[in-house]
Amino acid sequence: MNFTTILGTPDFLEHLRGKETTFLLALSNTKTYEIEGITQAGIPGKIYLTPTLDSEFVCAGEVRSLDGVPETPKGVPTPALITRAVHLQNPFKDIELLNLGLEVAPKLSYFKQHEFDIEPSNAINSGANINAMELFQKGLEFGKNFTLKNDYIILAESVPAGTTTAQATAKALGYAVEGKFASSFKEAPTNVKQETIKEALLKVNEQMDIFDKLSNVSDNMIIFNAGFILGLNAQQAKVVLAGGTQMASVLLLVNSLVEIMGGEFDSSNIALCTTKWVYQDEGSDIKALLEMLNFPINAYASDFDFSKSSHPALKLYDEGEAKEGVGAGAALCYAAVNGLKEEDLITQIEAFLV
Amino acid sequence: MNFTTILGTPDFLEHLRGKETTFLLALSNTKTYEIEGITQAGIPGKIYLTPTLDSEFVCAGEVRSLDGVPETPKGVPTPALITRAVHLQNPFKDIELLNLGLEVAPKLSYFKQHEFDIEPSNAINSGANINAMELFQKGLEFGKNFTLKNDYIILAESVPAGTTTAQATAKALGYAVEGKFASSFKEAPTNVKQETIKEALLKVNEQMDIFDKLSNVSDNMIIFNAGFILGLNAQQAKVVLAGGTQMASVLLLVNSLVEIMGGEFDSSNIALCTTKWVYQDEGSDIKALLEMLNFPINAYASDFDFSKSSHPALKLYDEGEAKEGVGAGAALCYAAVNGLKEEDLITQIEAFLV
Repeated sequence: MNFTTILGTPDFLEHLRGKETTFLLALSNTKTYEIEGITQAGIPGKIYLTPTLDSEFVCAGEVRSLDGVPETPKGVPTPALITRAVHLQNPFKDIELLNLGLEVAPKLSYFKQHEFDIEPSNAINSGANINAMELFQKGLEFGKNFTLKNDYIILAESVPAGTTTAQATAKALGYAVEGKFASSFKEAPTNVKQETIKEALLKVNEQMDIFDKLSNVSDNMIIFNAGFILGLNAQQAKVVLAGGTQMASVLLLVNSLVEIMGGEFDSSNIALCTTKWVYQDEGSDIKALLEMLNFPINAYASDFDFSKSSHPALKLYDEGEAKEGVGAGAALCYAAVNGLKEEDLITQIEAFLV
Repeated sequence: MNFTTILGTPDFLEHLRGKETTFLLALSNTKTYEIEGITQAGIPGKIYLTPTLDSEFVCAGEVRSLDGVPETPKGVPTPALITRAVHLQNPFKDIELLNLGLEVAPKLSYFKQHEFDIEPSNAINSGANINAMELFQKGLEFGKNFTLKNDYIILAESVPAGTTTAQATAKALGYAVEGKFASSFKEAPTNVKQETIKEALLKVNEQMDIFDKLSNVSDNMIIFNAGFILGLNAQQAKVVLAGGTQMASVLLLVNSLVEIMGGEFDSSNIALCTTKWVYQDEGSDIKALLEMLNFPINAYASDFDFSKSSHPALKLYDEGEAKEGVGAGAALCYAAVNGLKEEDLITQIEAFLV
């Protein structure tokens, strides 16, 4: 296993080789998932449970708030399986959860669940109704006061319909991102997504300040984590953003905030790690999104795929379904810099599906 | 994989099983490498680049200051490949570089490069021209103040022509080391080496103090590391000297300094680890060199070799070329006490040469 450098040099990830990490999983519900056909990240009618189930599976190896591992109607299993497999073979030193507005809290003991008194946000086509300033400040304070127990942080997410809110966020901030955002579908449901984003953007105008815009069109994960990253940056913490275009949107928000609010931001302490499926996706362009930032950023893609697997549900990843989520890409990069073998991971992931 | 105890008991290395290490790579140029035929540690005309390229390859997996991995004119690849392969399969927790006088600094970000304002030393046949007292004190201070981040330190080196300066150093200190020093060549270039050492020794006399002698005939790596080891010893740090006869020369210098200057030296915190190729070399005698010390020392040799490889360039190691360097022997001992498999390492090393 190895990784590809999307932007920057291999050095950031190379210097994390063998080091210990805190895996933080940011969990949130945006009711945008209720829009028919917008996401396949979960079981129809139960999509709101996906972040809850993902976190249960990554931490405890079983889902507790519903029977069965979340999978799409096409049978694509959640990328939480990939993250869990890596954790089994070269454990993250700590896993902690950030409850950024869940409908159902994960049923887990011992694993730290950080609570911030955040409600699920509304669907962006009728206004997300987030107190964005307060949420951002919660993230900022959490980052400034976060105790670093290990060498670095992997910050992952599980937010169904999150690529739609991420795209709306970037557009509301004025970035020209058309065609650059990924989807959990192989064939992205362009019409319903674009219609939703269009409706959402009708709620914002140029007179609004950045937080008013975010309040309407964004999601809790993006706003909180932009604050969290800026707070962590103040203490020079090394952070791997674990995700594709959603994490790119977090960075675009950080970029806008640094521009508007000024202040120091040292991007040398941050990198983004994603999957090969996102990096090579023809329907999106993670590299182009990251090149819109005014600061340099190291970004990497795992070279892991399921070409050596014979499991039909996993093969769907190689065809472009699911692609990323629950920190799968960063987990695979972490696996690469800790000497794990692709065959062993595939065997482990296949074993979950028996 | 396993290791052989050259001197002492297996216990020092056994108690490091599974522990975490800081791999320190001491890099230096002595212009002794310019003497025709004295070393094969690198590309003719570019031998001064070898430590720079070795460190780039170990840290980042690619050479940046020149195209291609350093190899000898006979095609023997640098032992940095061995060290890198071990790092890939069971990463050192931290890698840091000591710039002890390089002509070209490694092109690396994120990896700590300790700078001491040290110039490359001159060829010993015309006087190395080192401020040995100042250099020793830089090492001593660095050792006293070095922050131990992990359980132990592996101290490795890359110094082309370093076996020649090591031998001259030991002789100038009065040790009877004839025939006991190794070479990067299978058939050591005895004439040019002995001629160079003879010329170097003409620059020293019995009236000189130890530092004056070192100033003429030694190299930066040996003098600095003798100080460094004494400094680390003051804080009871566990250190593995990663190398063959060059590291033996560092110990011989420590031995002389302790004799001359008095003071406490607890050799139970130090061991030497080298390769099978050095240990079994008929042209040198690492064990005899270590037996000249007035203190007991644990010393080990990896039992790794390339008998299971079919790659002709690697087979040259088993014939006695290259033998050691860039911490290869200690990396292999570290691999042995961390459960790595010889076949996996060979596969990895072969993959670098495709």
